[in-house]
Amino acid sequence: MTQPLKIHYTPIEVRGYELDSFGHVNNAVYLNYFEHGRWDLFRKLKLNEIIHATHRIIVVTDIHVRYMREAKLYDELEVRTRMIREGLYLIFKQKIFNKQSGLAIARGEVKTIFLAQETRKPTDIPKEFIEYL
Amino acid sequence: MTQPLKIHYTPIEVRGYELDSFGHVNNAVYLNYFEHGRWDLFRKLKLNEIIHATHRIIVVTDIHVRYMREAKLYDELEVRTRMIREGLYLIFKQKIFNKQSGLAIARGEVKTIFLAQETRKPTDIPKEFIEYL
Amino acid sequence: MTQPLKIHYTPIEVRGYELDSFGHVNNAVYLNYFEHGRWDLFRKLKLNEIIHATHRIIVVTDIHVRYMREAKLYDELEVRTRMIREGLYLIFKQKIFNKQSGLAIARGEVKTIFLAQETRKPTDIPKEFIEYL
Amino acid sequence: MTQPLKIHYTPIEVRGYELDSFGHVNNAVYLNYFEHGRWDLFRKLKLNEIIHATHRIIVVTDIHVRYMREAKLYDELEVRTRMIREGLYLIFKQKIFNKQSGLAIARGEVKTIFLAQETRKPTDIPKEFIEYL
Repeated sequence: MTQPLKIHYTPIEVRGYELDSFGHVNNAVYLNYFEHGRWDLFRKLKLNEIIHATHRIIVVTDIHVRYMREAKLYDELEVRTRMIREGLYLIFKQKIFNKQSGLAIARGEVKTIFLAQETRKPTDIPKEFIEYL
Repeated sequence: MTQPLKIHYTPIEVRGYELDSFGHVNNAVYLNYFEHGRWDLFRKLKLNEIIHATHRIIVVTDIHVRYMREAKLYDELEVRTRMIREGLYLIFKQKIFNKQSGLAIARGEVKTIFLAQETRKPTDIPKEFIEYL
Repeated sequence: MTQPLKIHYTPIEVRGYELDSFGHVNNAVYLNYFEHGRWDLFRKLKLNEIIHATHRIIVVTDIHVRYMREAKLYDELEVRTRMIREGLYLIFKQKIFNKQSGLAIARGEVKTIFLAQETRKPTDIPKEFIEYL
Repeated sequence: MTQPLKIHYTPIEVRGYELDSFGHVNNAVYLNYFEHGRWDLFRKLKLNEIIHATHRIIVVTDIHVRYMREAKLYDELEVRTRMIREGLYLIFKQKIFNKQSGLAIARGEVKTIFLAQETRKPTDIPKEFIEYL
């Protein structure tokens, strides 16, 4: 990774009710983990406030998840999140690591776009975001 | 049950992602089923419209669930819901049946109260509800 | 689509507890819908029995979701699922339609691979699946 | 509370995907929090190992939740869990506190019973549990 300073870290511990009937974390739960990583980053950088102040909303257009290894009960994980820009799109590159083994268990890419709150038409990324990319 | 005409029926089929690591429907999912039964009843009787028109909100104060039998993948269930009044409280009496066996698998009681939208103070049950009790 | 006979249809109705804080179906819930579509297809075609009898397990390696339109409370949806083969991979091509509008609201691609139950090594798709591709 | 030393504390932070369409933590999510508190206690005291070694399983028969205050995004909560015995039943008394305000937001009581793994008949609480009650 070329921008180590821009990576955001969110710890997560696997909870009993997140396991599926095979005893592993269910596929859809990884999306919850990734989403938690993004909310956590938004809070730290006060990005919700910027979005609100610039009269925009942000919507997800695409999600891609690569499942690499299983997560099990009580595993201590870490979601690593960074943002890149691709035209009008703000893209979240995320990885989930198992803290004990140090190995990546999943990789995610979440593509989002900003809409003007009024017109719901696509608009550019708020300039206040640029320093975090 | 003394008011058979006032019972509302909602069919539900157990989905794969609702199973826990023991292969049974997770305890918290029963609350989803009960909630779905209430939303379904609200839609049929247009109760959300009444609540909105009378400037109230409805909040849950207590939930009690009695777990009686397991639910497994693909089971066809039925949530039966009726409403009773207890002072200011509107109480939902709910049961989940397995349609194949005819046996009850869980019983729920959900206690709710209406608040005035403005003041957030407890208020009475809208009179339009009375015919459904 | 070139194989209309091989498409599997699963009806789903949006439930109140599936909405997020914006009043829309949460992103992760779409994965639940897609998963339900696959479990439903597996039941109809008795695929779990085949997997079990051939001493395999099936694991998800990749999920891609394209979000196209919002889903709201009480929307009646339909998940359409078909399977294709790509080398060792069994790929589920899925779409969610709004039955009222007839419009697609999301598209999903779920890539899976079979492992031998004993060795956990990748193995080929059971030949009994071929007629359904 | 008369047994302060027997109380187990589990921190939880409210996550974005746990909010419902009213912007509050959904009712069913509280059950997840309570369940997480119990799994956390079981891990610390190695109770799963005891249950397994004594050839029992533990099942939930009743849940009662009293909702007292709302939980909102990013709230830092604490689940406090203690166990008491009531005949054959092992009962979990749980409370969720908001760490900022110090106020209780929900109270839960989860009634469980042990079954012999083989016969699925009710059996007594493993004696190794007694010191934790």
